Amino acid sequence: MAKIIRAEHYRWNVPLKEYKTEGTGFRHVTRQTLLGEADGEERLNFITRYFEVQPGGYSSLERHEHPHVVVIIRGEGEVVLENRVERVRLHDCVYISPHTFHQFHATGDDALGFLCMVDRERDRPQLPRDEDVERLSTNPAVRARIRT
Amino acid sequence: MAKIIRAEHYRWNVPLKEYKTEGTGFRHVTRQTLLGEADGEERLNFITRYFEVQPGGYSSLERHEHPHVVVIIRGEGEVVLENRVERVRLHDCVYISPHTFHQFHATGDDALGFLCMVDRERDRPQLPRDEDVERLSTNPAVRARIRT
Repeated sequence: MAKIIRAEHYRWNVPLKEYKTEGTGFRHVTRQTLLGEADGEERLNFITRYFEVQPGGYSSLERHEHPHVVVIIRGEGEVVLENRVERVRLHDCVYISPHTFHQFHATGDDALGFLCMVDRERDRPQLPRDEDVERLSTNPAVRARIRT
Repeated sequence: MAKIIRAEHYRWNVPLKEYKTEGTGFRHVTRQTLLGEADGEERLNFITRYFEVQPGGYSSLERHEHPHVVVIIRGEGEVVLENRVERVRLHDCVYISPHTFHQFHATGDDALGFLCMVDRERDRPQLPRDEDVERLSTNPAVRARIRT
């Protein structure tokens, strides 16, 4: 059935969860799944989530086969995309193509918040091996930015 | 390849298009396809668009089998969802389930802008027949709001 998930200052009427329930390499990140996982939403082939990274925080450095679509809706930050670092700000849209290592950092005074859409059926993320970190770090900007 | 589509006050670095190139029953609506249709984005199974409705404008009243996920990122308005009318405002998220007639209206002083995600492969929209309009219009709020 059609419905509206109402927002109130970056909180929707859905559970506020930890970013991940296992693993390491992330800091100060929360997740709200807006659509695509609840009962009655089975027809959706993709999931819409909202992630929020508090100032100084970051998501996991990881990669996977499935792509991500990200739209920034709060604050600003930096994103590592394989061997480069890019600034992102309000409403910038990021395409994370298959097998691209990525990591979001909240570098401003406010939280960095973004919508992230993914296929419902998708592969599990892979964390970097030492040789991956070494390869990405040939760019000094990436070496200075990534956290593992 | 991973990339960033940069935003500048609700304009992204993609073509600004008419909402639809055929049909009637809409007014003052533009469309920007952010991700999912360009070369190199073939792996994406869903498309991310931004629609903007100028004050007093509205989208087509229509339905289809494929669902829509909508997130309001500018202004406020009203949405017809089958036989009800709901207000929507910043960051509200709307799930338009299969076969639900829907129409977005910009009712404020500013434009109503929203992200809309859909399956890449999807059925064509159906416009309402007279009996559909009659059925929806049993709710006076819907009757007063819809434009066909």
